[in-house]
Parts: sequence; C-alpha cells; structure tokens
Amino acid sequence: MMRSKVLSLVARADSNRMMSTATKFTTVEVNDKTGIATLTMNRPPVNGLNLELLQDLKSSIDEIEGNKSRGLILTSSSSTIFSAGLDILEMYKPNKDRIRAFWTQLQDTWLALYGSSVPTAAAINGHSPAGGCLLATSCEYRVMVPNFTIGLNETQLGIVAPQWFMASFLSVLPQRDAERALNQGRMFTTEEALKVGLIDETANNKEEAIEKCVAFIGTFAKVNPLARSLTKQQFRAADLQQLQNGRKEDLEKFLFFVNQPAVQKGLGIYLEGLKKKAKKQ
Amino acid sequence: MMRSKVLSLVARADSNRMMSTATKFTTVEVNDKTGIATLTMNRPPVNGLNLELLQDLKSSIDEIEGNKSRGLILTSSSSTIFSAGLDILEMYKPNKDRIRAFWTQLQDTWLALYGSSVPTAAAINGHSPAGGCLLATSCEYRVMVPNFTIGLNETQLGIVAPQWFMASFLSVLPQRDAERALNQGRMFTTEEALKVGLIDETANNKEEAIEKCVAFIGTFAKVNPLARSLTKQQFRAADLQQLQNGRKEDLEKFLFFVNQPAVQKGLGIYLEGLKKKAKKQ
Amino acid sequence: MMRSKVLSLVARADSNRMMSTATKFTTVEVNDKTGIATLTMNRPPVNGLNLELLQDLKSSIDEIEGNKSRGLILTSSSSTIFSAGLDILEMYKPNKDRIRAFWTQLQDTWLALYGSSVPTAAAINGHSPAGGCLLATSCEYRVMVPNFTIGLNETQLGIVAPQWFMASFLSVLPQRDAERALNQGRMFTTEEALKVGLIDETANNKEEAIEKCVAFIGTFAKVNPLARSLTKQQFRAADLQQLQNGRKEDLEKFLFFVNQPAVQKGLGIYLEGLKKKAKKQ
Repeated sequence: MMRSKVLSLVARADSNRMMSTATKFTTVEVNDKTGIATLTMNRPPVNGLNLELLQDLKSSIDEIEGNKSRGLILTSSSSTIFSAGLDILEMYKPNKDRIRAFWTQLQDTWLALYGSSVPTAAAINGHSPAGGCLLATSCEYRVMVPNFTIGLNETQLGIVAPQWFMASFLSVLPQRDAERALNQGRMFTTEEALKVGLIDETANNKEEAIEKCVAFIGTFAKVNPLARSLTKQQFRAADLQQLQNGRKEDLEKFLFFVNQPAVQKGLGIYLEGLKKKAKKQ
Repeated sequence: MMRSKVLSLVARADSNRMMSTATKFTTVEVNDKTGIATLTMNRPPVNGLNLELLQDLKSSIDEIEGNKSRGLILTSSSSTIFSAGLDILEMYKPNKDRIRAFWTQLQDTWLALYGSSVPTAAAINGHSPAGGCLLATSCEYRVMVPNFTIGLNETQLGIVAPQWFMASFLSVLPQRDAERALNQGRMFTTEEALKVGLIDETANNKEEAIEKCVAFIGTFAKVNPLARSLTKQQFRAADLQQLQNGRKEDLEKFLFFVNQPAVQKGLGIYLEGLKKKAKKQ
Repeated sequence: MMRSKVLSLVARADSNRMMSTATKFTTVEVNDKTGIATLTMNRPPVNGLNLELLQDLKSSIDEIEGNKSRGLILTSSSSTIFSAGLDILEMYKPNKDRIRAFWTQLQDTWLALYGSSVPTAAAINGHSPAGGCLLATSCEYRVMVPNFTIGLNETQLGIVAPQWFMASFLSVLPQRDAERALNQGRMFTTEEALKVGLIDETANNKEEAIEKCVAFIGTFAKVNPLARSLTKQQFRAADLQQLQNGRKEDLEKFLFFVNQPAVQKGLGIYLEGLKKKAKKQ
C-alpha cells in the first residue's frame, strides 16, 4: 500500500516519464495506481517482427527496467493478432547486412524479455504463432482471449525454431508435449493451450486479460524486488547463457539455413499465398 | 494427398524395395497407401535383444531412413511380448569380445532410433520390460494393448539402467515419476502407463494399435519433412550428444559392473528361474 | 523377510548402535521389525538449522548409511514445526569464520541427504519453510500432516534460494510451477502441496505419516539395494555435481549477498518481528 502511493507521487512529479511513452511501433503506459507498465506492440496489420519492431520492443523493455515499474504486461494494439511472428520479408531474398542485424536484434530482444528483472505477463489478445508465441512464453504468465491460436508452427512453414525458442517453450510445457508440438508445428486453440499449460488463464477480452495480468503481478507485492529478480535470473541462467555463449553460432546457423534455395522457395510460395489472401479480402 | 499418390506410384515401380524386406530377426513392410514402414521384431520366443537382433534393428532403421518412408512403426511378431529387453545370455559369463560388440551395437541402435529423422511410433502389443521399454520410449508416440506391462525394471534384476535409458524415460515422464519408477524397477500396467504418460493411447489389439500409430504419423502430413527432422534432432541433441561424447566410458562402466561377481551370481539365479519356469510350461 | 530377521538379530546383538542413538539435536531410531531408521530433528523451538543441527543431521545420515538401515525417515520432535529453515542468527551480523563453517556444513548436509544411498522419505509433521522445504524435497517421498505450510519462501525474506535449493525443488515440481513459486516465495498449504506434487500423500498425524513413509520404503523390498543405490545416484548425479564443482563459488556468492547492508537490515527487521511475536505469546 505504502509502496504504490510513493510510486504514484513519483508519477505525478515526473508525469512524462511515468505516464506514456512511444516509439514508432510500441507504446509504454505506466498505471499510476498499480505502478505496472503496459507495453503495446503497434505495427499494423499483424505486428510482424521486423528489425524496427524488435528494436522498439527492446528499448521499451529497457525503459521499463529503468523506470522502477512493478511489472510489464505485453499486449497488442490489434484486435485479432498478438503478433504474427518474424516478418517473412526480413528473411525472403534478404539483404546481407540487414538480415544479420535483424537476427542479432531478435537475440537481444529475447535476452532482455526472458531475462527481465521485473515481473512479466502477456495479455494475448489475438493469434500468436511462431515469434508471437516466443514473446508470450518468454513472459512469466499468460492470459489469453478465446477463439485465437498460439504455438510454434515453424515446421509448417518449412523453418526450424532455434534452440532458445525451444527453451522458452520448455519452460512452460512438459517435455513430451513440447517436442510433439514443435515437430507438428501445432497451433493450440485458447482452450487447448489452457489445458496443456501453454497459457495460465483465459479472459473474455483484452481489458479482462490485462486485469488478470495485473492480479498476477500483484502476487509479488510482499516480495523483496531484488531477491525476486536475482531468483528469476538464477532460475533462467542456464537458458540465457546457452544463447549468450553461442550467439555467433546461432546467427551463422540461421543464415546458412535461411539461405538454402529450398527454404527461400518455400518462403516465396508462402508470401505469394499471403498476397492472394490479401487481395481477396 | 498428392504426396501419397506419388509415393504409391514409386512403390509400384520398385515394389521390391517398398513392399517388404527382411533380415533374420526383423521385417520391414511399407504400406503403399500411407508410405509408412512397419518394423517388426521377430526373434521368438521373447524378442530378447541379443547382438544379432540389435544389428538387424539398426539395419532396418537405416533402410527406413533411406527409403523415403513417411514414418516408422515398431512392433513385435509375438502376441504376448513386445520385447523382453536385453538378452541375459549376452551378459552372463560373457565372451570378452562379443559383450563389447553387443553393448556397442546397443548404443548404435539406440542412437539410430532415438535420433531417427522420420516420425516414429511404437505399437506395443505385449510386455515391454527394460530394453523393450527403452525401444518404446525412444519412439515419439506409444500405443499399447491392454493386459501387458511396461517399465525399466533393471533394479529388480540387480542391474542399473544406464544414463541414456534414463534420458529416454525422462523424455516422456515427469522427473519425480521417472526417478521413483527407476529406483523401484516398477512395471506399469497398460492402464497405469497411460495415466502417468508413459504411453499415449491404448488399443484393443495390434491392428488397432498400428492404426493409431498411423494416425499419429498422419499429423505430420502438412509439415515440411526437412524442418521436422532438424527440429526433432535439435530437441534431442543434448541426449544424443551425451552418449556420443561418452560412448567409451559408458561401455567400460557397463563391463565393469556386469563382471562383478555379485551381478554374475544374480544373473545366474535369474536364468535358473527362467529355465524352471520354461520346464513347467 | 529373511533380511529383516537378520537385521533384527544384529540389532539385538548390538542394541546401542541399532536401537537408538542421539546427538545433541538429532536422534536415530531403527525399527527392529522393518530395519528402517527414523531421524528426528530436535532443536526446540523450531528446528532452526544452525551449524550444530546441520552437523548433527550430517552425522546421523552418515550413521544410517553405515548401519545397513533399509531406509531413512526424516521428521521433527515438534508438534507444529518440521523445520523453520536456516537459523537467521547464523546470518545476522555473522562471525566471519562461523558463517563460512555454517554454509559449508549446509552444503555437506544437503549432499549427504540428496545423494543418500538408502531410500529416504520425509514425515512432515509441521510447517516447513525455506531450508525445511529443502530437507523435505531432498528426500524421495513426502507425507504431510494437514494444516501446515511448505515452500521456498526466501524472496519473502529478501534472500535468494541458491541454485541447489532450486534443483531439489525442480526434482518434484514442473518447471513453470517451480519458477513461479520461487519468485513468489510461495508457501503451499498441505492440500495445495498435494495438488501440485510438492508432497506425495497426506496423513492425519505424525504416526500415520511415518507409517506411510514405511510403506513407501517397502516398495523397494524386492529391489537389489546396490542397483537401487547406483540408479538413484546416477539419476541425481548432475544436480550433485553442479554443487560439488561449484562449492567455493556458491559459498562466496552467499557471503557476498548476505553481507549486503540491505540484506542485513532486512534480517534485522525480521528478527525484531520474531522477538515481538515471542513476547506477545
């Protein structure tokens, strides 16, 4: 109680910093009363994770780390898509320098989110395939709105989720469920995701999803923030270090794979399909 | 749909390769319509895993890897035993060279099955103790017929399941269930195995078990085979590498243990029991 | 049957050793009939784990390892507290040499209990926070009396459970449940602990809890003790080695953390609270 009052005074004294900030593709709003920051992805139409959205996500996470927020809730400005995952245009016929920057940024953004010292929760208010599922499973808690789907469906697209995508997935699913879903590229409905543990709760809409995320972050109210942060980072240390120690190899592996003619051909066919779909609508 | 037609034409053009092949102790039959290979163990009376059956298993797995099958279903020609596990005769008063070849072949066969690039499923149509359970848990899916038992019961025989048996077991069971069952040498009934997750489904008989395995392999119909295979191998890489990096130590550890007088004595008593049982029947 | 008779004769021939032994803060009683040793913590009022209780625990575990007991049941002489965890007085304004001895002893005691070759079970007959929960989760089985609580609540006290506390916790809980509970410093009621798998059974009172532990240890009656012991130690090898390889770093990390002014201040406030509570009663 005392603590949120103090935060709220700080907020009033420095309302620019605490109230709402925005980059091109993300916004951060800190709630005066709860001290919790909502980080909204806003790159229409599908929050495709391109270099710039990943950069903006990283700088918003850094801002939240720095502004003494009591928690981070990740959500989307779209009413149907949380994030459609990696932007295929970054991978199809890629520019040599840009694709390196893109993948390196993806690594950086994941390291920042998965290793974040503040409590994190995802209000999944739309479909969440591939990289969207990665972001959601990198948070500590997941609340999802019905009639959407979530999963690491990379094999359906002819690509391979890297080892650290698997680590995030394994942090929430039992091993045999995780492996099978990865091999199948399975997308789970909201109900299926709840049953298997891929999400923690359902909510009727975005507002309710955010409320439930706030309630989850509230479970840390009496916990020492430094002890909590060190505990979380120690728990996640092995996963984080595996990428940190192998960043270069991970990048080279991705570049080698994505530049295979068969993979480029597959991505091309997929993009054609998307274009046709868009024209019909 | 397109894909199975093509496979079926190939099958007709080259029916020797696609229809049925046999080694001394295994047969491989590829179904024209589904493109799925059924690998049957056939070493009566109990599919005891001796050097030759393990060699035949390995060469059948290699054949299936090479013949573009869409999946591998492992089953038994016996109506009561899937596999009784390692042939005790290979371990009791062993020939020095043969026991080395035996254990090395066991390692090779496991590496091939656990790391197989094609989807794998076990139609468990009989009891499946020890090495039989290892084969079953090395597959991606398990369907079992009622009134049989499955488990790693090595401690009941006075021996120790090596670390990579544990890895296969842990790939399907929660850690505390896996450790307790290993320490107890517990055999699970079909129903118990289903409840704990050691198997995925039950079936009334072998034919139905194979049908359900076919249905599981069918879930990969729309998945890119290369992406699937790389995903599976990446997921299993740590388990596979642990044995690959320590094959020699694993062999020496086994040889040291199995040559202990107390272990030899225990195996002798066990074999005497089997002989008496056989005479009574 | 034969075996327990032999043990019982041994017990009678050497009744001091087999019947009941005591250190200052622990007692060991071996049941003639079952051959199972009950190790009781007896440092009123709360079994606070100070240097001496940890030493006594270690020497009692060593005694049980050495006296051919068929199992070890850990319990408390208190009717309301299993163990309140690490004695805060060892950490508050610590003596430089004693705190090193304290933490090193904690490591030794955990290595002995978690790696014990005999079957272990905890009859949790009272509250079991922090280090109390560590002891309980280091056993192979847990039976708990209703209306108590158990958990690793370190973050509530402003401290961090070290990596090997997490390993014990993860040996019984799924990853996402373990991480969340650690971050929250969550204490589970007996019923909640049963539901999540933190304990295996409930019992109406201490006697019934011990009976159920005896029944669990009885599941190993037909198992070869050497094979069982090697199986358990192989299963736990990675966890044990991680501490063994990093003991010095673990000690330095603890000393650095506990000597932070903020941590000392927190412990001081906590101790003041305990004193006031004690005066009121």
